[in-house]
Amino acid sequence: MGKVFVDVGMSLDGYIAGPNRGPGNPMGGRSMTIHKWVFATATFREALGIPGEGEKGPDDALVKALFARPGANVMGMRMFEEGEVSWPEDAPFHAPVFVLTHRPRAPWPRLGGTTFYFVADGIASALSQAKAASGGKDVRISGGADTIRQYLRAGLVDDLTVHIAPALLGEGLSLLEGMGAGELKLRQGRTLSSPSVAHIDYVVER
Amino acid sequence: MGKVFVDVGMSLDGYIAGPNRGPGNPMGGRSMTIHKWVFATATFREALGIPGEGEKGPDDALVKALFARPGANVMGMRMFEEGEVSWPEDAPFHAPVFVLTHRPRAPWPRLGGTTFYFVADGIASALSQAKAASGGKDVRISGGADTIRQYLRAGLVDDLTVHIAPALLGEGLSLLEGMGAGELKLRQGRTLSSPSVAHIDYVVER
Repeated sequence: MGKVFVDVGMSLDGYIAGPNRGPGNPMGGRSMTIHKWVFATATFREALGIPGEGEKGPDDALVKALFARPGANVMGMRMFEEGEVSWPEDAPFHAPVFVLTHRPRAPWPRLGGTTFYFVADGIASALSQAKAASGGKDVRISGGADTIRQYLRAGLVDDLTVHIAPALLGEGLSLLEGMGAGELKLRQGRTLSSPSVAHIDYVVER
Repeated sequence: MGKVFVDVGMSLDGYIAGPNRGPGNPMGGRSMTIHKWVFATATFREALGIPGEGEKGPDDALVKALFARPGANVMGMRMFEEGEVSWPEDAPFHAPVFVLTHRPRAPWPRLGGTTFYFVADGIASALSQAKAASGGKDVRISGGADTIRQYLRAGLVDDLTVHIAPALLGEGLSLLEGMGAGELKLRQGRTLSSPSVAHIDYVVER
C-alpha cells in the first residue's frame, strides 16, 4: 500500500508562500527566495517548460525522485485555481489530481497523463479516490497550506518533507500556524543539505 | 577577531521556548520537546550537574564545541533572571556574561570563571565589552529571542545556528516573529543531522 506524503518548501520563518498571492502570482511576493533551489534544477525546468539549463546535482536528484513518487495527487481548490492559469498545457503531474471543491465539475484531462478530478464530498473521499487511482504508488497532498493542515490534523499523512530555505519572508502563508502541539507528532528521518537548502524528512507518528 | 554568533534550539513551527515561562520554568511549557537532544548529551548533563549518563555521539560533540566556542556571552535581563534561579552555583558559562539591563548593578562573580556584568548603556556597548573580554574568541548572543532579534536587526551577528527539533509547540516565544524579510539575509552553511534534531548553520550576509 502506498504512503500519503506532503513535500513543501518553507522559509526559515515558516512560510510556504509569500503575501498577496493570486492568479498570475500563485506563490506570492518574495516566494522565489523559498523556491529558488527548485527552479535551479534541470528536472523542474524541464517539467515546467522553463528555458535555460538547470543544475544536475543532489537537489536535482531529489526533485526527480519527488516527481516520480506520487501515483496520484490531492490539492485544494485555491491551489488548483492559482495553478490553472500558470501550469503549461502539459501539466506537471502526469498522474490523476483530485481537487477539493464545493462545486462539482466534470473531470478535466490535460496532455501528458494529468487529469483533474473534482471531489465535493470531503478530504477522506478525495484521498480514497486518489489511493484507488494511484496504482499502488504514494499519494501526494500537494497543497495549499490549509489543505495540508486538514490532512495532518485528520491523521491521514504518513510522511512530511520540508525544504527549509535560508530566507525570511516576514509574512505570507504559514505551513503550521494555528496547529496545536498535540495535533502533530513527528519523528525525524533523513536530512540532506545543499548549499542553498536543508531538506528534512519527518515521519508522522500516530 | 572573533565572530558574533547565535545558537538556538527551535521547534519546526519556529518557537525557541514554550508558553508560560518564568522563574523556575525558564523555558516554558513543552519546551523539553525542543531541547531533549541537548539534555541527552553527556557534555550538557555534566555542565548543568544533571545526574545520569549522557550520550556521546555527534550531538554531544556539537554541544562540546558550542560550550568551548565563546570567550564571552551577551544575554537579556529576562534570560538572566530566569536562569539566575536555575543555573548551578558553578554557572555553565565559564566566561564573562554581559547582561543587558536598565538598572546598573555590581558585577556578580560565580564559581568556575563565570562573572555576570550588567550593562545599562545599550546593545552595542554590551557587545563591545564582550568582545574586549573574549580574549579573541567568539562572542555568543545567548538570548532570549528579543535580544537575539535586536542584534540581528542591528547587523551585529555573523553566524546563526538553529537546531530544529521534530516537534511543534503551537505557542510560545518565536525566534523570528515580527522580523521583516529585508531585516535578515542568510546564506546556508553546514547542515548536520542526528535522529532527533537537524542542525543548520547560516552565515548572516551584510
